[in-house]
Amino acid sequence: MSKLPNVTTSIFTVMSKMAAEYNAINLSQGFPNFPVDERLTDIVARLANENVHQYTPMAGYPPLMNKIAKLIQDSYNRTINPDLELLVTAGATQGIFTSILALVKENDEVIILDPSYDSYESPVLLCKAKPVRVALNDDYTPNWETIEKACSAKSRMIIINNPHNPTGKILTEADFLELEKILSKYPDLLVLSDEVYEYITFEEKHISAHTKNFLSDRCIMVSSFGKSFHITGWKIGYTIAPEHLMKEIKKVHQFLVFSVNSISQFAINEYLDVVDVNLLGKFYQEKRDYFQKLLQNSRFELKPCEGTYFQVASYAYISNEDDVTFCKNLIINYGVAAIPISTFYSDHKDQKLIRFCFAKDDFTLESAAKKLCGI
Amino acid sequence: MSKLPNVTTSIFTVMSKMAAEYNAINLSQGFPNFPVDERLTDIVARLANENVHQYTPMAGYPPLMNKIAKLIQDSYNRTINPDLELLVTAGATQGIFTSILALVKENDEVIILDPSYDSYESPVLLCKAKPVRVALNDDYTPNWETIEKACSAKSRMIIINNPHNPTGKILTEADFLELEKILSKYPDLLVLSDEVYEYITFEEKHISAHTKNFLSDRCIMVSSFGKSFHITGWKIGYTIAPEHLMKEIKKVHQFLVFSVNSISQFAINEYLDVVDVNLLGKFYQEKRDYFQKLLQNSRFELKPCEGTYFQVASYAYISNEDDVTFCKNLIINYGVAAIPISTFYSDHKDQKLIRFCFAKDDFTLESAAKKLCGI
Ligand SMILES: CSCCC(=O)C(=O)O
Ligand SMILES: CSCCC(=O)C(=O)O
Repeated sequence: MSKLPNVTTSIFTVMSKMAAEYNAINLSQGFPNFPVDERLTDIVARLANENVHQYTPMAGYPPLMNKIAKLIQDSYNRTINPDLELLVTAGATQGIFTSILALVKENDEVIILDPSYDSYESPVLLCKAKPVRVALNDDYTPNWETIEKACSAKSRMIIINNPHNPTGKILTEADFLELEKILSKYPDLLVLSDEVYEYITFEEKHISAHTKNFLSDRCIMVSSFGKSFHITGWKIGYTIAPEHLMKEIKKVHQFLVFSVNSISQFAINEYLDVVDVNLLGKFYQEKRDYFQKLLQNSRFELKPCEGTYFQVASYAYISNEDDVTFCKNLIINYGVAAIPISTFYSDHKDQKLIRFCFAKDDFTLESAAKKLCGI
Repeated sequence: MSKLPNVTTSIFTVMSKMAAEYNAINLSQGFPNFPVDERLTDIVARLANENVHQYTPMAGYPPLMNKIAKLIQDSYNRTINPDLELLVTAGATQGIFTSILALVKENDEVIILDPSYDSYESPVLLCKAKPVRVALNDDYTPNWETIEKACSAKSRMIIINNPHNPTGKILTEADFLELEKILSKYPDLLVLSDEVYEYITFEEKHISAHTKNFLSDRCIMVSSFGKSFHITGWKIGYTIAPEHLMKEIKKVHQFLVFSVNSISQFAINEYLDVVDVNLLGKFYQEKRDYFQKLLQNSRFELKPCEGTYFQVASYAYISNEDDVTFCKNLIINYGVAAIPISTFYSDHKDQKLIRFCFAKDDFTLESAAKKLCGI
């Protein structure tokens, strides 16, 4: 009997594979297709012949950890202690999995919003804890009333994802006020904040959970260099948590991976001296605007996108197919791959919505748009 | 309350840190200090500017997986199906953790030999299963009689480590015959075989568990490129298991890391074309012999070493201190770091034994030996 009986091949794997088979333009799985910053690849090329190939310390290469602390200081004006509150992880996925495994116990309840990225439920189930799904409002804002109703003495963790994959929604100051009200009633409730797109927001500024005073002793924040530096393959990110939680997270990390790829750590340590993460939002905002403009005359109806590199679109005017079928046919008949939004919902409800990734070079976006406008 | 209340800072971290503080020669944590093969670092330097920076498929970069299957064919004359029986992992540690998490359930028992490397117990405890420790014989051979006595209907897994860290012992054909007898009585009992030093054996040839027919449907074999290619920092290895087990392991892997560092996978894929893993045993055998010769006139008594890059030594003629104290004083007073063997035992019993890592350049071994001979 499987410990994860309901897990099947991830939709990202299915769609990327099918895109390759049909030679379709892949706007499904979220990864950039343009070249990585040469300053970063040059660093890697130079470091390759240096002494960067043996174990770094368990929690991370110390100079990198100091550099991440500085990044957080510069970005959010928040001081963290890298020795006690920081962990370098093999991607944000590992940060999420490790944090849940370390902090969630049997019979605990974990609140997961619906729709959600697919990484949250399985680690909760492996802890023999219970995922409690709470639907977002129709405009993808959190419904704090239903979230509060879902909370009880059994609740151990709320998982938020800000900016939100797949909807591109970001949390506001008002959201954090509501969250604060709820947390004040549940002193043991933790917040796991998946902020892998923290630097990819547009009109509104990103609010990072760990900067909020009321969260300082109970927030686990997970971020990803893969997303911030266009290197999703590197599998490197970091987790911030207060010392008493980080102590437990490190205990699991030690036996889960022990440490993270050394070359990547040395390289990002140097790259952080020259890269300006504040340019990222503008970069992707231009991509979003361009992609939206290209699709303006299509029959897709585009939803608002406040952050991430994902654009949600309705095909209700185009087809009556369910979204999974629509996506498969989109690959086969039109040569464009997207992700069906139903796969982010616990009940897989079809709403004639699909997600495009616009982290692509202009030529790819133009070629895809041409095909999509022909539908 | 911690889910891993007994976990403290790993002895490898403690000793490597102390070695750095006292500027001691670090023969504690197992990692090479000589340069990595230039053919490999040149591959990395070249690849850095190529398209190797985005997600590889979940189970591994397909060309690398084919190359690993070929390596296994060449090394052991065994055919595996890379699509169904292979997983590339973020180091052997991740392979071990993921396999245990996927396959061991609450109240299962897992047999762990004593002494053992420190990675096995925590994942078992996180599954709410029970580690059952069985002592090795005094010469570090498995005591199959006591192992059999420890087995019951509750036993889900036996973890073996071959070649064995810290003792350097390897398993013989006779050992596998005994194992087969036990397994024939317990059809659901799995074998997790940690073979990270598979290519580092000396007078006797390594026998890989997955090549044994009686194990073909229930062996999970874990290996490490870090050990085989002197790149412990890269955190890349692989796991082999029959399809029905691998299916479950992949389900956990998907949410635990999703995929492994892409540059490393592309680089090792190319390196496997030119490297000859069969030279590794001879390389380390010379190191072992040289280190043993250098210590010949010391007051340490060296134990036999059949594989791995570790040498166990008794200091019973030198000091009455317990081994942890002895190791600390060895750093402070003599400038050499080693690992106390007691830390590999569940009851931490002191036997006046310490472990040296001889994966070091000759100058380092000579400098260390000079200090050790002066005691
Ligand atoms: C790890 S595959 C999924 C990548 C991603 O973040 C997404 O497409 O949503
Ligand atoms: C991951 S730190 C431990 C390294 C090692 O394999 C050892 O020293 O035994």
